Amino acid sequence: MNTDTSSQIGMPQDQLVVEINAKLRDYVAQRGLPRNLADALLYSGLGPGKRVRPTLVVRSYEAVHGPLTDGPMPEALLAAAVGIEMVHAFSLVHDDLPAMDDDDLRRGRPTLHKHTNEAMAILAGDGLLALSFELVTRNVNDPALGLALVGELATATNDMIAGQVYDTLPEDDGVEGIDRLIRIHRNKTGALLRGSARMGGRCAGADASQIEALTRYADTVGLMFQVVDDLLDITSDAASMGKATQKDAEAGKLTYPGLMGVEGAQAEVQRLQAEAHEALEPLGAAAEPLRRLADDLAVRRK
Amino acid sequence: MNTDTSSQIGMPQDQLVVEINAKLRDYVAQRGLPRNLADALLYSGLGPGKRVRPTLVVRSYEAVHGPLTDGPMPEALLAAAVGIEMVHAFSLVHDDLPAMDDDDLRRGRPTLHKHTNEAMAILAGDGLLALSFELVTRNVNDPALGLALVGELATATNDMIAGQVYDTLPEDDGVEGIDRLIRIHRNKTGALLRGSARMGGRCAGADASQIEALTRYADTVGLMFQVVDDLLDITSDAASMGKATQKDAEAGKLTYPGLMGVEGAQAEVQRLQAEAHEALEPLGAAAEPLRRLADDLAVRRK
Repeated sequence: MNTDTSSQIGMPQDQLVVEINAKLRDYVAQRGLPRNLADALLYSGLGPGKRVRPTLVVRSYEAVHGPLTDGPMPEALLAAAVGIEMVHAFSLVHDDLPAMDDDDLRRGRPTLHKHTNEAMAILAGDGLLALSFELVTRNVNDPALGLALVGELATATNDMIAGQVYDTLPEDDGVEGIDRLIRIHRNKTGALLRGSARMGGRCAGADASQIEALTRYADTVGLMFQVVDDLLDITSDAASMGKATQKDAEAGKLTYPGLMGVEGAQAEVQRLQAEAHEALEPLGAAAEPLRRLADDLAVRRK
Repeated sequence: MNTDTSSQIGMPQDQLVVEINAKLRDYVAQRGLPRNLADALLYSGLGPGKRVRPTLVVRSYEAVHGPLTDGPMPEALLAAAVGIEMVHAFSLVHDDLPAMDDDDLRRGRPTLHKHTNEAMAILAGDGLLALSFELVTRNVNDPALGLALVGELATATNDMIAGQVYDTLPEDDGVEGIDRLIRIHRNKTGALLRGSARMGGRCAGADASQIEALTRYADTVGLMFQVVDDLLDITSDAASMGKATQKDAEAGKLTYPGLMGVEGAQAEVQRLQAEAHEALEPLGAAAEPLRRLADDLAVRRK
């Protein structure tokens, strides 16, 4: 993602990340939790990363509301952005567990269960998920908006979990090849991106057609994100990724390059990038931050 | 708990359990989830048990609203009751994991990770938690009530997780003896009971003083529940419990009988039972279902 703030329209990316991290840190610190649990939540919630989902929340808000240029984010928007990041952090902590992906490193740091222990990683993952809902309910004054945001967050989480099951505990239900791959990714990666865009839109008071445009955009970007990810897994090396490479390919997993070849997958990135732009047409010029985000994600490195 | 419906005031206990189980089953079945995930959610969500928390939701509602005598439960109340049961089921699934309590049996049945596998148990636990929030948001029409219920559910879950950390991953923070034991149980067991009573009250439109009375009642019953549990662990045998007995005592865990002796703990049950009745005084005659529930829980067997 582009972090050159001079090219941003709307809230500068670095300010966005600072606000997200500060809110997450303050909320956990003030919640009244056992110290070791709070430490574990912060270790994971504030880990290195590009804050793609909170960024999508804010850019989707801006695409409906207009650019956020100065001052702190509206409280409900900040809560939505932090909430979805907490859900993302929860998913990483549990995915890394020995019974799941069994990863020792994430972005060059020990995973939480290596940093602490497995019991704490299970409980801290649970805690990040439950805190995300609490944070939203405590930081949104408009009940209708608050309930809508909680609903989006819950549905995104449930769809993500379904995607994880489709991916790692597959049953033979007749869905194969590219259809199976798309089903996995529309849920596993796509659900939180879709939820991010919809939550941002809802905070801006988007109408049904705007929510629909944001949803289609996010679904498209979500698939593109995953094709790029698959391509990066092939082309990057362990040192730059902080985790084992080509792990998916070696494990015989479905990937876009595996199904369409590297060139086919690269062409698919371009097709999806164009489709993302098309999805934004109903939102007009205000959607420029989302156009830039799609373009950034199409060429991102890990 | 007393399941003799002839002695019930308000909704018969067996009808209550039927409605709770049916709603949970229908919601999971219609959610559109991978079949194996749905099966895992139902295995745990519909496992044997007395549905203490949903019962407390409904009896707290009745204590404010008056007895529910005929017809199905109001939709919001049913959602609150099923939601808290899902959170309880999630906590059992994760507590049983090898990295936590490592239990193979629960109430005579294989625990979920023995019935399926550890990855599915992690994901299904996560799923029960996230679905509980989704179910509440989708089944409560009044946004202010819905948001309040989600807030209660989230806070109860977070406090419960904190209690689990205080219990199983304790740090030396100077809190010792009975104070430490009460802190553990006010969170670990107490939080969901407190949340149940408050959610039931909120569904009935309880005012602040009624919510306060319900909270005090639930906190008291929650501690009593735990003292009874500790006493049952000493007096029951493996065959009737479906799990290893005296496990806590052997592991050197803090227990009420361990700290106060068996007779001291039995006296504490009576004291807490009286305090629960006292807490209900502001609610008057309508609180009779909660008085009976406290009396039932004081003499319960596993």
